[in-house]
Formats: sequence, structure tokens, C-alpha cells
Amino acid sequence: MGGVDSQLLGLRGVAIVGTGLLGGSIGLGLRAAGYAGRVIGVGRRIETPRRAAELGCVDEATTDLAAAVAACDLVILATPLRHFESLLASLASIDAAARLIITDVGSTKDRVCADAQRILSPAGARRFIGAHPMAGSEQHGPEHARADLCAGRPCVLTPAGDADPAALAAVEGLWRTLRMRLVRMTPAEHDRAVAHISHLPHALAATLVGTAQRQVGLDIASSGFASTTRVASGDPEVWVDIFRSNREQVVHAIDEYLADLTRFRDLVAGDAAPALGEFLRQSQAGRDRWLQSHRPHAEPH
Amino acid sequence: MGGVDSQLLGLRGVAIVGTGLLGGSIGLGLRAAGYAGRVIGVGRRIETPRRAAELGCVDEATTDLAAAVAACDLVILATPLRHFESLLASLASIDAAARLIITDVGSTKDRVCADAQRILSPAGARRFIGAHPMAGSEQHGPEHARADLCAGRPCVLTPAGDADPAALAAVEGLWRTLRMRLVRMTPAEHDRAVAHISHLPHALAATLVGTAQRQVGLDIASSGFASTTRVASGDPEVWVDIFRSNREQVVHAIDEYLADLTRFRDLVAGDAAPALGEFLRQSQAGRDRWLQSHRPHAEPH
Repeated sequence: MGGVDSQLLGLRGVAIVGTGLLGGSIGLGLRAAGYAGRVIGVGRRIETPRRAAELGCVDEATTDLAAAVAACDLVILATPLRHFESLLASLASIDAAARLIITDVGSTKDRVCADAQRILSPAGARRFIGAHPMAGSEQHGPEHARADLCAGRPCVLTPAGDADPAALAAVEGLWRTLRMRLVRMTPAEHDRAVAHISHLPHALAATLVGTAQRQVGLDIASSGFASTTRVASGDPEVWVDIFRSNREQVVHAIDEYLADLTRFRDLVAGDAAPALGEFLRQSQAGRDRWLQSHRPHAEPH
Repeated sequence: MGGVDSQLLGLRGVAIVGTGLLGGSIGLGLRAAGYAGRVIGVGRRIETPRRAAELGCVDEATTDLAAAVAACDLVILATPLRHFESLLASLASIDAAARLIITDVGSTKDRVCADAQRILSPAGARRFIGAHPMAGSEQHGPEHARADLCAGRPCVLTPAGDADPAALAAVEGLWRTLRMRLVRMTPAEHDRAVAHISHLPHALAATLVGTAQRQVGLDIASSGFASTTRVASGDPEVWVDIFRSNREQVVHAIDEYLADLTRFRDLVAGDAAPALGEFLRQSQAGRDRWLQSHRPHAEPH
């Protein structure tokens, strides 16, 4: 079960800015692992961090970012992407000495890492370690937070080439404490990968709900439809931000997919049974290989 | 929990031809409901019905269709679609008096219902009641059978206009005993609906595995990818049959989908935030409405 990574032991406190599903789960996970420092939830309005505190996700709730980070050594940005730029600007003015270690949970990395370089001081930028813990669900709000939401999942880190080694070690320790599998990428590599394995699936699911509903209705839709469209129940505001911040890579991924789906359509239209069978067998084998090598935990799939 | 529907009480036995995931689950479900007649598993090779019998899905295993149906009043065709035509021909010659009530679990209905009309005697055709219990998973084989696989799911019935009322009542009783929600459609209506809510999702999932794997690999794929692609782990042979037997409707559904996905792509490419938000909100709302009104049972989604 791990416990607290040694890199976190010296940190007085962790400020989680944005205490929804993921921010709340990070707080619960730190507590479950035995982290003994303060965990402070920060929100623009007090309601969400206060609910998170009532649910045990954080120890304290505040709207005062400056007061929160004064008591902490590590800040986790866990709001929707649209707030990162102004949060980085606030942190730059609050933390003139670049004492804070900053990480984030943003679903895209190119823009936020560029923003950190541009907005923070040179010393502050070296202590910003971009991260994407690939955990979540279609639910939102701290009510759905779970201590093990991150456990066993990949966490992509996108540190700059000149990142502060101590900051990098602390951020690695944070995600390791939550039992995540660390993967190092450049921001551009990350954004291209998630365009295909996360943003494209969301686009497909959202479009499928619309097509099926408009053409035939959903009265007899069953478990297969439920799984294939699950992510379409995710928060639309969060997803608008994601699609906008990864526009070029998402458009490329959809274009590649449109070509592949047209190929599949032509196999069906041409009644090309052997080629159709081969297409389906390759997909089945590819998915099953991935499941076997990457999913150590039993869970709904 | 229901118990056995009164329409089943007079039936001496039920023959399940094909004892994989669905056939095996039907047997388990009949037993769990308290059905007291014989349940006989039939296969082309003895291995599968024998495993089903060992697992308690059926009472007896045989490869002898004639012997099995001699002891039964109801036959359920639960093999892949490709075997239905020859099974109907066998039943027509075995059951010259058209004593048997026949139903099936085929994922498409137009072809099998036409085959029944053509192959069976006029009296036999009136006692064939096409059915599609919309339950299953990406797993296969009687090892994964579950007594409650069908419970709470829709079962589409496609009786001919001149169907025998007693046969129809018995088949309705069968699926009601398995606690399914009965929905009446014509075969053509059914095939158009499942093209969109079942076959299209499978095409999307299988294509997604291929695109993502080829473009970026699956190393950091996580729970959203797992859900969206779950059905792609289904048996390729079963799915080739389904796509071939519903070719025209599937091609139409994919064409509609390609147009809708292109529209989504253009919203992303044009950075059309309000329209993109509206698209995602409509999908979220549509899916959530469907979940609330159609899924009484808690289950992974």
C-alpha cells in the first residue's frame, strides 16, 4: 500500500486549488497514505472547498490563495484549464521568492507549461512541474472523490529541461504517494498522445449519443452503449477547455479516425468478410494485450 | 424477484442450442427463477454444452438436436447467427408436426425472421417468435455466464403478424422469467435501431483501438479509453456475422455518424466555443436522461 513517499515528508503542507473530483481525491489519497502535513482546499467560492473539508478531502477550506500557500510548500492546480493562467499570475505575485513547488492536473500540457515559463519568474518556472494524473470519471464534485481514484493509473510528468531537481523529486513523490505509475514525456508528446487516447474517445462518445438519439432514440440501448458513451457524461465546461487547449492535435486525431472509420465502413459495405474479421481480430488482440500489460487492478471495464 | 412466469409452467423442457455466455446465462437464469422443467444444452461439439452442464447452466449436454427437442416444448437458438439457417432447416425436418415453439437471441432480426418464414412449414413459422435479448458483454463462453445477465435489460420481440398466440405468450413468459423488459418491434425497425445503438458503437470502438494504437500506442491509455473500447474485446467471429447480416443499416448508420463527427471536428477546428459547449451539453443531457429513465439496476457504467 506504499504510504507516504519520503520526498513528501519534509513538506509542511499541500494546497489543492480546485477541490472537485480529482482535487478531492488527491486530498483523500494523501490522508489515506498517512501524509501528516496540512492539506488546504482553495476555491474561488468557499462552497466547494468547504464541502470537500466536510467530506474529509482537505483539512481546511479557504478562498484566500495567498494565505493558503503561506502555510504550504507544494501547490496543486486542480481547477478547469481556463483558470490556470490567472492562477499562475497570482502565484507569481504572491511568491516572489519562488519558494513554492507547483504542479497541476491539466489534461493538456503544452499551453500550461508555456504559460508557466512565461508568467512565473525564471526561478519559479524551474519549480513548476507539469503533470497529468490520468484518473477521473464522468462524475464531478468532491462528493464522488475516492482515496484510490489515482491508484494504479498513469501520471504523465512534463518537466522542463532545466527543472529544479528538488521540485521534480517532490512532485514525483506526490504522485507516487497516490500510487500512480510515472511516465515522462515532453508537453508536445503528451498532447499528441492524449488527443488519441482521451480526447478522441470523448469526441466519439459525445457524437455517438447525438447520432443515435436523433436517428432512432435510445429506448433499447443497453450495456454496450452505456460503456461506449460513458465519458460523454463528463462536465461539458471542462471538456470545452480541453478541446480548445489541444485544438490542433485533436483535429489531427479526428481526421485520422475519420479515414480509418471510412475504411471500416467500406469493408462492411463490400461484404469483405475476411478483411472485416481481420480488422476486428486486430482490435480485439490490441485491446486485450493492453489490458493485460497495463491494468494491474481489478475494476469495471 | 418474479419467479417463473405462468406461461412457462406447462412446458416440459427448454432446449438451448449454443451454450456460450448468453445461452449459459439463460439456463442459469431459468434455474435461479425456479423453473422446474428440463434444460438441455445442445452444441455441435459436446465440449461447450458439457462445460455448461458442469457449471450448472444446463441439466444435460448433447450434440443430438433431435433427441434434445423431443424432450422439450421450447427451443432457443443461441449460437452465432451463421448457424441459424441450417438449425432452422434441421428443426423443420425434425418437427414435421410443428409442435415446437422456437425463439432465438440473434442480434439482427430481418434475416432470421425471413429465414424462419421460408424454411419452416407455415404452421412452424407461426410458432417462431424472433427475439433479441439485449444482454451480453465482451466476454464469451459459459464460464462467464451469470443468472442475472438479462435482468433489467430490454428484450426486443419481432413476432410475425400471424404469430401463434400461445407461442408468443410462452416466449414472452420465457424472457419475463429472466426479468427482461419486453419491447415489440418489426424486424426492420429492430435492425435499424440496433445498427445505431449497438453495431455502430462496436464499429467505433474497434476502429478507435486501431487508430490510437497505430498513431501513439496505448501506454498511457486509462479508464476512459477502457470504457469507450470495451465492446471491441467481443468475439470477432460473432461480430463479422452481425455486420454482414445488417450490412445496409450499419453502412447508413456509419455514414450518418461520419457526417456528425465531421461537424464536431469543424467546431473544434474553428474554435467555436459556444457551439462546442452546446454540442457537449446536449450529449451529456441526452445520456443522463437515458440512464435515469432506462437503467433501474446499479451496475458499472
